[in-house]
Amino acid sequence: MSELMEMLIRRGFLWQSFEIYGGMAGFIDYAPLGNGLRRKIENLWREFFVINERAAEIDTPTVGVEEVFIASGHATSFTDVAIECERCGRVFRADHYIKEKLGIEVDETIEAVSEVLEMYDLKCECGGNFKKPTRMNLMFSTTIGPGRGKKGYLRPETAQGMFVNFKRLADYFRGKLPFGVAQIGRAYRNEISPRQGVIRLREFNQAELEYFVNPKEKKHPDFEKVKGDVVRLVDKFDHEHTLTLGEAVEKGIVAHEILAYFIGKTRRFLLKIGIDDKKLRFRQHKDDERAHYAVDCWDAEVLTSYGWIEVVGIADRTDYDLRRHSQYSGEDLSIFIQYPEPIKIRKRKAVPKMNKLGPVFKNKAKLIAEALQNAELGEEIVVEIGGEEVKLSREFFDIVEVDEEITGEKIVPHVIEPSFGLDRITYAVLEHSFDKDIVDGEERKVLRLKRWVAPVEVAVLPLLSREPFTSKAMEIAAKLKSEGFYVEYDDSGSIGRRYRRFDEIGTPFCITIDHQTFEDDTVTIRDRDTTKQIRIEIRKLSSSLRELLNTEKDISEFGEIFRE
Amino acid sequence: MSELMEMLIRRGFLWQSFEIYGGMAGFIDYAPLGNGLRRKIENLWREFFVINERAAEIDTPTVGVEEVFIASGHATSFTDVAIECERCGRVFRADHYIKEKLGIEVDETIEAVSEVLEMYDLKCECGGNFKKPTRMNLMFSTTIGPGRGKKGYLRPETAQGMFVNFKRLADYFRGKLPFGVAQIGRAYRNEISPRQGVIRLREFNQAELEYFVNPKEKKHPDFEKVKGDVVRLVDKFDHEHTLTLGEAVEKGIVAHEILAYFIGKTRRFLLKIGIDDKKLRFRQHKDDERAHYAVDCWDAEVLTSYGWIEVVGIADRTDYDLRRHSQYSGEDLSIFIQYPEPIKIRKRKAVPKMNKLGPVFKNKAKLIAEALQNAELGEEIVVEIGGEEVKLSREFFDIVEVDEEITGEKIVPHVIEPSFGLDRITYAVLEHSFDKDIVDGEERKVLRLKRWVAPVEVAVLPLLSREPFTSKAMEIAAKLKSEGFYVEYDDSGSIGRRYRRFDEIGTPFCITIDHQTFEDDTVTIRDRDTTKQIRIEIRKLSSSLRELLNTEKDISEFGEIFRE
Repeated sequence: MSELMEMLIRRGFLWQSFEIYGGMAGFIDYAPLGNGLRRKIENLWREFFVINERAAEIDTPTVGVEEVFIASGHATSFTDVAIECERCGRVFRADHYIKEKLGIEVDETIEAVSEVLEMYDLKCECGGNFKKPTRMNLMFSTTIGPGRGKKGYLRPETAQGMFVNFKRLADYFRGKLPFGVAQIGRAYRNEISPRQGVIRLREFNQAELEYFVNPKEKKHPDFEKVKGDVVRLVDKFDHEHTLTLGEAVEKGIVAHEILAYFIGKTRRFLLKIGIDDKKLRFRQHKDDERAHYAVDCWDAEVLTSYGWIEVVGIADRTDYDLRRHSQYSGEDLSIFIQYPEPIKIRKRKAVPKMNKLGPVFKNKAKLIAEALQNAELGEEIVVEIGGEEVKLSREFFDIVEVDEEITGEKIVPHVIEPSFGLDRITYAVLEHSFDKDIVDGEERKVLRLKRWVAPVEVAVLPLLSREPFTSKAMEIAAKLKSEGFYVEYDDSGSIGRRYRRFDEIGTPFCITIDHQTFEDDTVTIRDRDTTKQIRIEIRKLSSSLRELLNTEKDISEFGEIFRE
Repeated sequence: MSELMEMLIRRGFLWQSFEIYGGMAGFIDYAPLGNGLRRKIENLWREFFVINERAAEIDTPTVGVEEVFIASGHATSFTDVAIECERCGRVFRADHYIKEKLGIEVDETIEAVSEVLEMYDLKCECGGNFKKPTRMNLMFSTTIGPGRGKKGYLRPETAQGMFVNFKRLADYFRGKLPFGVAQIGRAYRNEISPRQGVIRLREFNQAELEYFVNPKEKKHPDFEKVKGDVVRLVDKFDHEHTLTLGEAVEKGIVAHEILAYFIGKTRRFLLKIGIDDKKLRFRQHKDDERAHYAVDCWDAEVLTSYGWIEVVGIADRTDYDLRRHSQYSGEDLSIFIQYPEPIKIRKRKAVPKMNKLGPVFKNKAKLIAEALQNAELGEEIVVEIGGEEVKLSREFFDIVEVDEEITGEKIVPHVIEPSFGLDRITYAVLEHSFDKDIVDGEERKVLRLKRWVAPVEVAVLPLLSREPFTSKAMEIAAKLKSEGFYVEYDDSGSIGRRYRRFDEIGTPFCITIDHQTFEDDTVTIRDRDTTKQIRIEIRKLSSSLRELLNTEKDISEFGEIFRE
C-alpha cells in the first residue's frame, strides 16, 4: 500500500467498505475527512457550474425504470466483453486481462477478444481455459414492487434523469435556450473485475451538467472570459498542442466555442480545488473510443500514481438523447425557437372555387374547402373528409403564390455535457496535495490542500492539557463552530506533535491558547505551509480566519510574524 | 390534486419521476426549487447534528453486501404482509388494504391477516379472491459482479454503514465516548403498493445520527440547554403531556436524558426550518410497534393534509446492532472505558511451588508455572502444555489472596439514533408555509418559507423590460451570484405580476431597478411577507441582504419604508 493510502485510511479520509465482512471490490467509504473534502469540492462545483451559469440543479432517483435505459441505449450498448474460466469460474474484463497479461490493446468486441485468446492460447491465472467471451451489461438490475414486479436499473449516469425531464425543464426556463441542468449524485457501473482501488468503482459520485443549446448557435455567452486561457490539448491523432482556447477553436482543434468554454471552465475549477496544472491535460477521444451518444468528446486527464486518468468528460451528445426519448415515449421534446425577425417566404397554395364545389359537394363543400388549404399540391388533389377520400380535379381550385410569415421553428436542442467523476477528482486532489518537507530538522508530512477545501479548517489547541488552557480553548472552539467553521479541538500530546497531526490532514490553521492569552486576550495562529505564527486578538479571530480561508493571503497581513 | 401540489409541479418544486414513460409510484424528482429547499434543510441539519455535536459525517455505499443485512436482521425482519389477487395478479400491502376497505387496524402477521380476509370475505378491487397472505422482504435486491455474482441489497437505512465502521470510527474519536456519526443520503424500501404520493416513497432521503454512548451514562453534555423547552408528548398509552423536557425525564415519561435531549434538539431544528409548532408532537411507539432493534422510540409527528405523519424517529437501539455485527463478523466491537480511578479488587490466585514442580516436570516446569497463574482454581488444576493436559494436585501450588488493580472495562456502547425523513420534512415545510392573503384588494398566494431555507433568495427585477434597466439589473444579479446568493433575474411581465410570481415560490426579497437607480445608485428591496419596500444604496445591498436572510429582522431596520 502506498504511504498516502496508508495515511488516508489511518487518519479517516477513505475506508474500504464492509471491511469487517472482508470488503468488496469497487466500493469505498468516505470517512469523516474524505467526506468533508468531497462535499466542499461539490459545493465549489455548484458555484462554478450551476449558480454562475444559467442553470438549475435537480435530484432524480438512482433507481430507474427499464424504459429509460432502453431509450438511452444503455440496455444494449453499456457493456464490456467478459471472459470466464472453465475451471475456477472467475470472470475477467477481457480487455483489461489481455492488457495485463499480454500488454496488448484489444478492441472491445467478441471477435477481437476471441482472436487474441486463440492466437496467444491465453489461460486463466489458475491455468484453466476460458469459455467463449460474452458481452455483459454493466447496469445493476433490480425489481420494483412485489413478485416479478417491474424491471429497474441503478442509473449508469445521472444524465438520463435530466433528459427525461426535458419538457418540464424547458418550461422552467420559459422555453429559452441556452439553459443548463445539473445533477450531483450517485451512479453505478457493475464492473466485471475492478482492481484499481479508488479509481474503478462500482458505485461512484458524479456531477453532471447538461447544457442545452440551439444546434445552430454553439456559442457560450461567457466564452470571452476564458478564450485567452492557455491549455494543453492532445487531439485524436495524439498530437499535443499548448495554446489558448480561442486559438484552439480558430484552428478547428476543438469543434466549437461551447466545448472550448467548458474545457476552460473545467480547467479553472480543477485548479481552484488543487489539481496541479502541470499534471493536467485535455485529450480528445479517438473515433473508435467515444460513447454511443457522442460526436466529440474531450477528457480532462490528470497524472497520478495510476498514470494519466480521466476525471472529466466533456461531450457533445448532439440531440441523440432527446430524439431517442421522444421516439420511445411519443412525447414531443422539441423547443420552439423564435426568429429575431419573422421570415417571409413565398408559398404556392390551393384556393378553393366555392362556386364549383357548392353545387357538386353540397354540405361537404365547406369541409373540403378547408382541407384544400393545407393539402399537397398537384394537378389532382386528394383530401380526406370524414374518413372518405375525395378526389378533386383542377376545376375545383386555383393555385396561387402567396407570402407567408414564419416567426420561428421547432428544433430539438443539442446538449453539451461536462461530466465529472468526483471520486477520482477527490483522490487526485489528495495525491497532488501530499508533500513532505523538513521542519526543525525533522521530516514532516503535510497535505497542502487549498484552504477552501480543507475538511478541518481550524484546530484549536490549548498549549498545556490542563485548566485554564483547556476551558478557554473549548470556549473558542465552540464559538468558531457556532459561526460555521469546521473546527477540531485537540489537547493530547505535545504541541509540536499536535501541529504535525493537523499538518498531515491538511488543516490550514492552528490556533493556540497559551499563557499570554490570559494576559491580553490574544491567541496565536500558525500557518500550515510556512509554519509561521502570528499573534492576534481573539475578537478579530473569526473575521481574520474567514478572510484567510477564502484567499491565499499570507498570515503576515494579519499580524507580525513572531516565529518562523 | 391539491392546489399546493399543482403549484409545486407547475413552479418546479417536485415532479413525478419518469413522467414521459407513465411514471412509477414511489419515486419523485426534486425539481430546481425543491432541490434547493431540501439542500438547505440538509445543510442546517448538518449544522445542528454534526458541526455542533461531537460528531462526524461519513458517506458509505447505497449498495450493501448481503452479510451486513443478515447481521442487522433486515434480511429476515424488514418485511410487510402482502396479499395477491388470484384473478388480476395485483399485490397489496395487507394492513393498508384492510384499513382502506374495512377501516380495521390489523396486526402485521400472516395469521391476523388471514383471519380478517376469511371473516370479512375480503375481495380484490377487481372482484377476485386473494391467495394466502405472504411475508415480503422490502429491500431491493441486486447482484454484484458478473454471472451469479454476489447478492447485494439497496440499503434500507443509512445507519448500517455507520455500525459496520464502528471500529474505525472509535479510533477516529480516539476511543472516547460519547461520539456521534452522521450520514445524509439515499435509502430504499421496496413498498408493495405505495399510493400516498410524496409520503410513501420507494427511494427516499435520510439524515441519520448514530450517537454512541456508555450504557451506564445515558446523559448528554448539553442537556441543560434544552431541559427548559416545553414539548407536546403523547406516550405509549396515548396520554398527552405538555411539559418541559426536564420534567418529562423526572417523571419517567422519557426514559433518559439523551432521548430527551434529541427530542428537544429535533424540535428546535424543525421550528428553525419552518415547521409550525402547533402542528408538531412527539409520540412514543407502543410496545408492539417498535422496530426489531429498538427498546424505546419517539416519533416527531407533524400534522399535514395526510393527517399526522412521522417525520423523525428517535430510537434507543441499545447495543443490538454492534452486538449482532460483532457476532456475525467475528470482530470485537467493544470499547475500553477507563475508570476515573483504578479499582482494587481482591482475587484468589494459584502460586506455583517451583521446588516441587522442578524435580517432577523438568524442562516443562517453567511453562507449567506460567500456565498456573491464569488457570481456573480448584483442588486439582488442569493446564495445557504443548497440546497435552497436565493435572496438578495441591502439592504443586498454594492458593493465596492478592489485590489487583483494574483500570477500566470493555463495554459495547449503546446507540441513540435520531433518524430524519428528509422528503416528508421538505413536503411538510411546504405545506406549513403555503398561505394566501389579500394584497391591493386581490388574493395572493404566498409561500412563507423561512428566509434561510428559500431556494431563490433574491429576485432582481428591472422595472421596465428595456435598456438601461435590464443591463443594470443583470449586472447586479451577476454580482450577487458571484457573492454566493441564490439569485433569479426576471424581466417578463408587469412588475406586479413578477412580485406575485416570486411570492408564490417563497422568495423573501425582490430588488427592483427603477428610474431613481440611475440618479442616486439606489434600488428598492421588497419584503415578501409584508410587501413593504425600502430604498437602499447599491453598495450596501450585499451586506444588508446577508443580514436579512440570516435573521428575521424587519426591512425597516435597513431603510425607511416608502411603500406599505
